[in-house]
Amino acid sequence: MSSNRKRSPKKILVLHGPNLNLLGKREPATYGRMTLDEINHKILTEAQQLGVEVVIHQSNSEGELIDHIHRGGEICHALVINPGAYTHTSIAIRDAISGLTIPTVEVHLSNIYNREPFRQHSMIAAVSLGQISGFGPNSYILGLQAAVYHLSQS
Amino acid sequence: MSSNRKRSPKKILVLHGPNLNLLGKREPATYGRMTLDEINHKILTEAQQLGVEVVIHQSNSEGELIDHIHRGGEICHALVINPGAYTHTSIAIRDAISGLTIPTVEVHLSNIYNREPFRQHSMIAAVSLGQISGFGPNSYILGLQAAVYHLSQS
Amino acid sequence: MSSNRKRSPKKILVLHGPNLNLLGKREPATYGRMTLDEINHKILTEAQQLGVEVVIHQSNSEGELIDHIHRGGEICHALVINPGAYTHTSIAIRDAISGLTIPTVEVHLSNIYNREPFRQHSMIAAVSLGQISGFGPNSYILGLQAAVYHLSQS
Amino acid sequence: MSSNRKRSPKKILVLHGPNLNLLGKREPATYGRMTLDEINHKILTEAQQLGVEVVIHQSNSEGELIDHIHRGGEICHALVINPGAYTHTSIAIRDAISGLTIPTVEVHLSNIYNREPFRQHSMIAAVSLGQISGFGPNSYILGLQAAVYHLSQS
Amino acid sequence: MSSNRKRSPKKILVLHGPNLNLLGKREPATYGRMTLDEINHKILTEAQQLGVEVVIHQSNSEGELIDHIHRGGEICHALVINPGAYTHTSIAIRDAISGLTIPTVEVHLSNIYNREPFRQHSMIAAVSLGQISGFGPNSYILGLQAAVYHLSQS
Amino acid sequence: MSSNRKRSPKKILVLHGPNLNLLGKREPATYGRMTLDEINHKILTEAQQLGVEVVIHQSNSEGELIDHIHRGGEICHALVINPGAYTHTSIAIRDAISGLTIPTVEVHLSNIYNREPFRQHSMIAAVSLGQISGFGPNSYILGLQAAVYHLSQS
Amino acid sequence: MSSNRKRSPKKILVLHGPNLNLLGKREPATYGRMTLDEINHKILTEAQQLGVEVVIHQSNSEGELIDHIHRGGEICHALVINPGAYTHTSIAIRDAISGLTIPTVEVHLSNIYNREPFRQHSMIAAVSLGQISGFGPNSYILGLQAAVYHLSQS
Amino acid sequence: MSSNRKRSPKKILVLHGPNLNLLGKREPATYGRMTLDEINHKILTEAQQLGVEVVIHQSNSEGELIDHIHRGGEICHALVINPGAYTHTSIAIRDAISGLTIPTVEVHLSNIYNREPFRQHSMIAAVSLGQISGFGPNSYILGLQAAVYHLSQS
Amino acid sequence: MSSNRKRSPKKILVLHGPNLNLLGKREPATYGRMTLDEINHKILTEAQQLGVEVVIHQSNSEGELIDHIHRGGEICHALVINPGAYTHTSIAIRDAISGLTIPTVEVHLSNIYNREPFRQHSMIAAVSLGQISGFGPNSYILGLQAAVYHLSQS
Amino acid sequence: MSSNRKRSPKKILVLHGPNLNLLGKREPATYGRMTLDEINHKILTEAQQLGVEVVIHQSNSEGELIDHIHRGGEICHALVINPGAYTHTSIAIRDAISGLTIPTVEVHLSNIYNREPFRQHSMIAAVSLGQISGFGPNSYILGLQAAVYHLSQS
Amino acid sequence: MSSNRKRSPKKILVLHGPNLNLLGKREPATYGRMTLDEINHKILTEAQQLGVEVVIHQSNSEGELIDHIHRGGEICHALVINPGAYTHTSIAIRDAISGLTIPTVEVHLSNIYNREPFRQHSMIAAVSLGQISGFGPNSYILGLQAAVYHLSQS
Amino acid sequence: MSSNRKRSPKKILVLHGPNLNLLGKREPATYGRMTLDEINHKILTEAQQLGVEVVIHQSNSEGELIDHIHRGGEICHALVINPGAYTHTSIAIRDAISGLTIPTVEVHLSNIYNREPFRQHSMIAAVSLGQISGFGPNSYILGLQAAVYHLSQS
Repeated sequence: MSSNRKRSPKKILVLHGPNLNLLGKREPATYGRMTLDEINHKILTEAQQLGVEVVIHQSNSEGELIDHIHRGGEICHALVINPGAYTHTSIAIRDAISGLTIPTVEVHLSNIYNREPFRQHSMIAAVSLGQISGFGPNSYILGLQAAVYHLSQS
Repeated sequence: MSSNRKRSPKKILVLHGPNLNLLGKREPATYGRMTLDEINHKILTEAQQLGVEVVIHQSNSEGELIDHIHRGGEICHALVINPGAYTHTSIAIRDAISGLTIPTVEVHLSNIYNREPFRQHSMIAAVSLGQISGFGPNSYILGLQAAVYHLSQS
Repeated sequence: MSSNRKRSPKKILVLHGPNLNLLGKREPATYGRMTLDEINHKILTEAQQLGVEVVIHQSNSEGELIDHIHRGGEICHALVINPGAYTHTSIAIRDAISGLTIPTVEVHLSNIYNREPFRQHSMIAAVSLGQISGFGPNSYILGLQAAVYHLSQS
Repeated sequence: MSSNRKRSPKKILVLHGPNLNLLGKREPATYGRMTLDEINHKILTEAQQLGVEVVIHQSNSEGELIDHIHRGGEICHALVINPGAYTHTSIAIRDAISGLTIPTVEVHLSNIYNREPFRQHSMIAAVSLGQISGFGPNSYILGLQAAVYHLSQS
Repeated sequence: MSSNRKRSPKKILVLHGPNLNLLGKREPATYGRMTLDEINHKILTEAQQLGVEVVIHQSNSEGELIDHIHRGGEICHALVINPGAYTHTSIAIRDAISGLTIPTVEVHLSNIYNREPFRQHSMIAAVSLGQISGFGPNSYILGLQAAVYHLSQS
Repeated sequence: MSSNRKRSPKKILVLHGPNLNLLGKREPATYGRMTLDEINHKILTEAQQLGVEVVIHQSNSEGELIDHIHRGGEICHALVINPGAYTHTSIAIRDAISGLTIPTVEVHLSNIYNREPFRQHSMIAAVSLGQISGFGPNSYILGLQAAVYHLSQS
Repeated sequence: MSSNRKRSPKKILVLHGPNLNLLGKREPATYGRMTLDEINHKILTEAQQLGVEVVIHQSNSEGELIDHIHRGGEICHALVINPGAYTHTSIAIRDAISGLTIPTVEVHLSNIYNREPFRQHSMIAAVSLGQISGFGPNSYILGLQAAVYHLSQS
Repeated sequence: MSSNRKRSPKKILVLHGPNLNLLGKREPATYGRMTLDEINHKILTEAQQLGVEVVIHQSNSEGELIDHIHRGGEICHALVINPGAYTHTSIAIRDAISGLTIPTVEVHLSNIYNREPFRQHSMIAAVSLGQISGFGPNSYILGLQAAVYHLSQS
Repeated sequence: MSSNRKRSPKKILVLHGPNLNLLGKREPATYGRMTLDEINHKILTEAQQLGVEVVIHQSNSEGELIDHIHRGGEICHALVINPGAYTHTSIAIRDAISGLTIPTVEVHLSNIYNREPFRQHSMIAAVSLGQISGFGPNSYILGLQAAVYHLSQS
Repeated sequence: MSSNRKRSPKKILVLHGPNLNLLGKREPATYGRMTLDEINHKILTEAQQLGVEVVIHQSNSEGELIDHIHRGGEICHALVINPGAYTHTSIAIRDAISGLTIPTVEVHLSNIYNREPFRQHSMIAAVSLGQISGFGPNSYILGLQAAVYHLSQS
Repeated sequence: MSSNRKRSPKKILVLHGPNLNLLGKREPATYGRMTLDEINHKILTEAQQLGVEVVIHQSNSEGELIDHIHRGGEICHALVINPGAYTHTSIAIRDAISGLTIPTVEVHLSNIYNREPFRQHSMIAAVSLGQISGFGPNSYILGLQAAVYHLSQS
Repeated sequence: MSSNRKRSPKKILVLHGPNLNLLGKREPATYGRMTLDEINHKILTEAQQLGVEVVIHQSNSEGELIDHIHRGGEICHALVINPGAYTHTSIAIRDAISGLTIPTVEVHLSNIYNREPFRQHSMIAAVSLGQISGFGPNSYILGLQAAVYHLSQS
């Protein structure tokens, strides 16, 4: 990590996985009525208050998400990721995160532990700093705070 | 769904998953000798008889298939999908289908229930209207009919 | 198979398994409101259009269903069967079908893959030509067509 | 058991389970070319040599087989049974056998232990004297001998 | 349910499953020394005290039991059933009970939970009002009472 | 057991496990609207009719329940227990019951066999005389009767 | 909930489960060097900033924790609980939480998903609003915020 | 196989696995009171009657048994083997048998299917002609007959 | 550990888990006829011979046992524990032991490996120095010796 | 395969799966310090010595890897693939390889059999000629040799 | 057992299984630095103090260990065995021990319950008097004492 | 390792497990037509080219293979082993290899990952440097090269 990166405001990569581009439009009973744009706005507002910069991407493609993680590992200080359905199946994303030297916070809108059995195991959790699940859009806000708390302590 | 879409002929999205671009060229003992082009021709002919319009795509990429499903959900009245190998592993495609307000018919060329154990479970079936498996290219024709029957009744 | 049987119109055996005699009367939320008589009428109409003859039986007894399959194997050209609850438990019916030299199409009214786990495995599927599940009474119609398509190609 | 039954030649009940009525006609690669009549003739010949009487029944119905076992328990000295597909699923037949005071020998034409996994467990074996599997029609002959050896020793 | 049936004394169907016709004669250590006739007498006496009418059947055949359940559903107010060995294997009987609009009480003579593992799961329990297991012939008496209590409250 | 205890009216210990103190106040859809006090009153009334004495305790603590079972084993003639959530996890309560020389009847308000999988196994059932499940407060009444029937026969 | 409770500042119950009384003294590599008193101080400070009141208890006893949950359900607006080892085994605590009408936030100091397999399943998660795991003492702070966010929205 | 071997009387290798040298001396309740010498005598007598020659070996060593099978494959026409405890664990003996061009009959003194679960699976059965289990020393006699019947038919 | 504790005679905490207060009175076939008092006397005698001091507690409560372990960790040099039924279920006791800086020896009266399957796994073993199982009251004596041997070597 | 392709030097496709672009930069303890460029150089040098041509691609995307395999099947004589994390999850890549008429050699840098359980199963192995695992960059060299040996023999 | 053997000093067979001949030379972190000779010396010294005679053997061969057990059963009063890796796989050694009329004590140097899962199950434990695991060379000393205590009591 | 051994040409132990003595004679469809002598000749030729010395042994006995590994560990620089059927069952051979200070390369003639399930797990792989599977006799040549590459780098 360049010394330059350390002195400027901390930069945090926020990644949204597959199907999250449709938030607020589909299955509001499960995922709520807030759109991804509205959530991103909420994240940007919170980031400003916390004095950090955020970079936000969404992709439906496992490979593209891995590319984003690789690039984020070069220029960011932390990763906040909602891997969506890839949470439960992607060893490749796990390996990309495991290869990072920056901390990762895993977040989920819904409480994955009271859904179908195949959603109750995360391939990502074991290589993350921690996991936040079930608080709707607030999961991202809490995840951002968790990342900032951690960066301020290390 | 716009009222316009309802009055024009019903539009049905037909999606072919990974490796189906090689149909007729590879492993004919399992998948038959008809190429994807020939199957698509057969589908178009049947569609004309049924008085519906079809849009057809093939992709080897999970992310691209999800993009197609998202777009199809906006402009089509039903989805007929052969998710190929992603049938058995993709929660992300399942979520994309689950988010649709249009019905989905899952089709398979081969009878997935007399093949390897890992092919005998579909992640997609539980979020589809129904499943048709084992009738070769006719699986698509029967799937198209099933979709049209369903649309005509609802 | 007698040469006589081949020249006359194709004959197809349609078998209904246990509890299907109560269709339309019990649990309409799961199985629909059409009675078995109405479904049989629908099947007969479709058969006429397809130019085939159908023989229809229902039984609650595993042994009687096996007897019907044995007799059908002698005088029919295809079997369309909804084995009901025996789908999931009967190796004996599987063996009866496996011993047939005529093709079998397995059909289900409900989508067995979004019901209880014990309904998500079919003992019959691996010895059938193919399976059609989830389209209500149309499952029988599609099954009849699948059988006729298959007979016309072989 | 009446004292009369003990003095007269020993009587042995031979039961054939589901689908065995089609022996020799279906799937000869698995079950051989000998018909059930020919096997029964072979059994009767062997019985004569061994000086015992045999009673033979076949049924495709689980309930009828149980009725035969109940009646056999009253008038016979041993049971030789090929429960066919019910071997793997019928706790009811197991209970019927378990309730007998006469010995049971379980026989199978094919070697059930090199077939599909669901055929490799017998519900019946644990309540039988012993099991003979894999010798074609000779399995019945060996089973008859096993029963006679056992009766002569007890 | 006809209004007539409601005004006359409540009618309760009592069904005995496979092998129960041999009660008292076989394996008394497990099932006790009381014969089925004696148990039925005990049931009839209790019914009289409770002011209800009972209809009693026993069958070794799964199909026949289903037929009895179908008919009972038309003319009785409750079902008390000891499904014997079919408890553990019969989805077909489960479906027959599940289709009833009258309540079902499942009873067992022996405590099925301290017997072999395969007897410790009931396919029937989840579609019954409740289950009574382990009290010998008293299980029927308690089951009759449970049914009557329930009818008097609903 | 002292001879004195045998001559006086039979004494039966009724134990309520964890969270049952909130009956009627929480989750009435699952557990009904009757409070624990009302159930206890019902039990006392029934006991009087049956000519037995009852001692009733409730505790949220596994250890305290074991203490109650130990003491009950000294001074009572039978135990009727609803072990609540400990039903599924407590080997220690099982051992306490297993060590008793008096009979135990296990009761449950709800039908534990149509709830979550982790509630469908009882650690207690195998060491009890029998189990009654699913009849609401009547489960206790039936349990009391079952205990009294048993005591009157032994 | 009394109307009085609603107008006064929100009261939040914070519960610490077994062995947490030794925090900071034992296994600091896993659980950190902060003592329970220091964590409680941190929680109280944060509560003051958030304008809520907190009540804090620790117990090594499952039964006592249930008692605290029952009492908290009467007088608090939310529960933040670190159930410690009972997370993985206690159906009784799950039932106590499930019976609450106030929301529950489950927190863990360590990331339970990169520890032993038996720690990777929570009995509590499915009945909680959400779960926060892996951020050390900050897990409590984030949990408190999550509860306050939720209360302010409902 | 040399043409010489074919013309002389058929030679059959009988192999006894581990611990069988102690037959009749240890655990007679399970394995009977006949010693290995007495069983061998019985086998030799039967062989004489059947007009075949037998070679008999016992070993406690897996490697030695494999050596015997290799040598027997060169000079014998069939193998009758009681692999003892190696039945359940030895893939190496399975491979040795699988490599034979002569038929193998697997025999067991006790009924392995009503013993401990780990004894209910045979690694050997799938590569044998058939299996005979549960008839005490008669298992060897029946096994010898089965081998001779088979040789006389092929 | 205070230097004072090291110089005085070693102090060893002996803990007895649930139901052990009834030793000698209940199920003597499994647990023997010696009472807990007699075992404690035997332990005290052996301790005197080994020149160590012992502190002994018994509790039926998981929480109390944890409290004892916490206190013992402060003032003793080793723990000898028979966790009774909590052996198989208590992660909380495991965590309490895991947090100790003194060695733990796990002992069992009966051989837990030839009892029910659910008793054949110990949650405690992996965090103990070693385990002694099956020697009746001598298990405690051997456990005390094992602890003393270990302390004398470290 | 065109006859032209056969006469020119053999062409071998080498495919690197997800995250391998970061080799040498991340987690050197597991994957070594050699970068992907250095490994590719090593492969090219070895290819020259073996007299074969190599084509090398890396991608993080499952779909792109499938595209490469399809194209390679047209113009190459063998495939050497390190599927990275997709080894364990991708049925789609398995199907692409299974459809090839050229041989595939699967290679892994690390020994996948002493890593996490989910890495110990390869979806690819069963459709490959063989597998080489654990020799670091030499795995590629050995894989290239294995492919060349095989081509020279067939 | 001859009366002579009973009067002379008790003789105890000590058996060391595979790889134990390399003790002290290989993997000292797991198995300690004491060689097998030094352990044997320690055992002989302890035996002298206890007034018993010991016979000691080591073998890497399962068959030879069985031979030693058979011979030991004839001339010794107890067996102390460390079956090494055969602990987890050998049904044949289990059967040899099960056939003994003298008691067996199973010992392990390392605590097998905090090692790999495949080492956490002993085939031997269920047929032994008891098991001692985890105390290094002291496991043998404790095992010898356990055997002597047992012999002195029976 | 003596300094002498290091200066002389590297010595590599090649071990062949059970049934490999019959290579080329039995089951050529699976294992090829080359005899063990021919393979050994091929190995010796390759060794000469690589400038290393090889020692070759074959045994059908697990114990003898362990003895060879122990001796090889003293005098060789690497082990190349095809453990045959013991691959899947022998913890004892695993322990022998695990105890070596020289590297081990595991080789298999056939691709063990497209054979029976019980052949798809290797007990040996986790303690080896790496594994080569599926290349027929070339597996040994590649294994030798892998060992030599490794020795030249360390």
